[in-house]
Amino acid sequence: MLSTSPALESLITAFSRLPGIGRKTAQRMALFTLRQPRSEVEELITALQNVLERVRSCSTCFNITETDPCAICSSSRRNHGLVCVVEEPNDVFAIERTNDYKGVYHVLGGTLAPLDGIGPEDLRVRELIERVEKGMDEVILALNPTVEGEATTHYLSRLLKPLGVRVTRIARGIPVGADLEFADDATLVRALEGRIPV
Amino acid sequence: MLSTSPALESLITAFSRLPGIGRKTAQRMALFTLRQPRSEVEELITALQNVLERVRSCSTCFNITETDPCAICSSSRRNHGLVCVVEEPNDVFAIERTNDYKGVYHVLGGTLAPLDGIGPEDLRVRELIERVEKGMDEVILALNPTVEGEATTHYLSRLLKPLGVRVTRIARGIPVGADLEFADDATLVRALEGRIPV
Repeated sequence: MLSTSPALESLITAFSRLPGIGRKTAQRMALFTLRQPRSEVEELITALQNVLERVRSCSTCFNITETDPCAICSSSRRNHGLVCVVEEPNDVFAIERTNDYKGVYHVLGGTLAPLDGIGPEDLRVRELIERVEKGMDEVILALNPTVEGEATTHYLSRLLKPLGVRVTRIARGIPVGADLEFADDATLVRALEGRIPV
Repeated sequence: MLSTSPALESLITAFSRLPGIGRKTAQRMALFTLRQPRSEVEELITALQNVLERVRSCSTCFNITETDPCAICSSSRRNHGLVCVVEEPNDVFAIERTNDYKGVYHVLGGTLAPLDGIGPEDLRVRELIERVEKGMDEVILALNPTVEGEATTHYLSRLLKPLGVRVTRIARGIPVGADLEFADDATLVRALEGRIPV
């Protein structure tokens, strides 16, 4: 249908491989790049090339970085005795956005999913144990509240507690600004369980 | 917030310039490119480069092409006495998809929009007149049924009719598969006006 330009057709195919981008959106994006100033398309090309060349995993926390160890792992203003375990790098971004957390991170690379054949050896579990063994005061488990996230939280806490480290998990409860009336049962139960003195 | 990687930050900015892509989606897209096989990111880079190098406007119809004149304008199986005037290249794709139209096209490049300072000299109006003067049997106006599209249709028909060419416009009416009950008044009025004998 776009036979007038094979190059444009290839670009649409490449765009439509990105997450959440269907064929129609990919088409709109590709046609948009034609109307953009040449310099802006070149910027996108350079950005993609730079990401390929420069971005890697931190060998300590496995977050995205351009230097190894990453800026967080090498910062002297961070508490290196406090580690927050998350599933993916975007979880690090979400927590960093709050400007509240001052410890370091450990990116697990996913959750245990036996049905998909993902076991502890496919995640950075061994590396977490090694970091804790070198000396950690507290491990905060901040995995997503999904079935897999809960199972992984349970698995990790059983693995870590014998090492003599304090193991905590982030609170589940009513989101700030949300209405009690519309909270689901599971969340309400967790919120009641997690009640704190005022 | 993504200070751990300026390269990734630049990619997110570049992605978020694309139409319909907010900051969150751009972030998801950028993180996705990190997980993609290197070869797929390289394919996207090559596709962008090829589009920059190869894609241009057809000097006859102003559609997107890699050859000049384009495949449609140089085809001997097309009726070169019948021209369909559209706003943008994606309108050509939409009509071509039907495999029904056998004439040629003229991409106007938008519609008249006096409030935005877009007059006839900003569109390919002069070029259309020249093509019609060289000999055309019929001009089909296929602009979008917006206020600007309607005004442009009216303007072009007044400009073209004195040249002795047949000027038509595409039908407005109830879309195939739609429900009469839910059609808006303007569409119903047009559908009644445009009634044809059965």
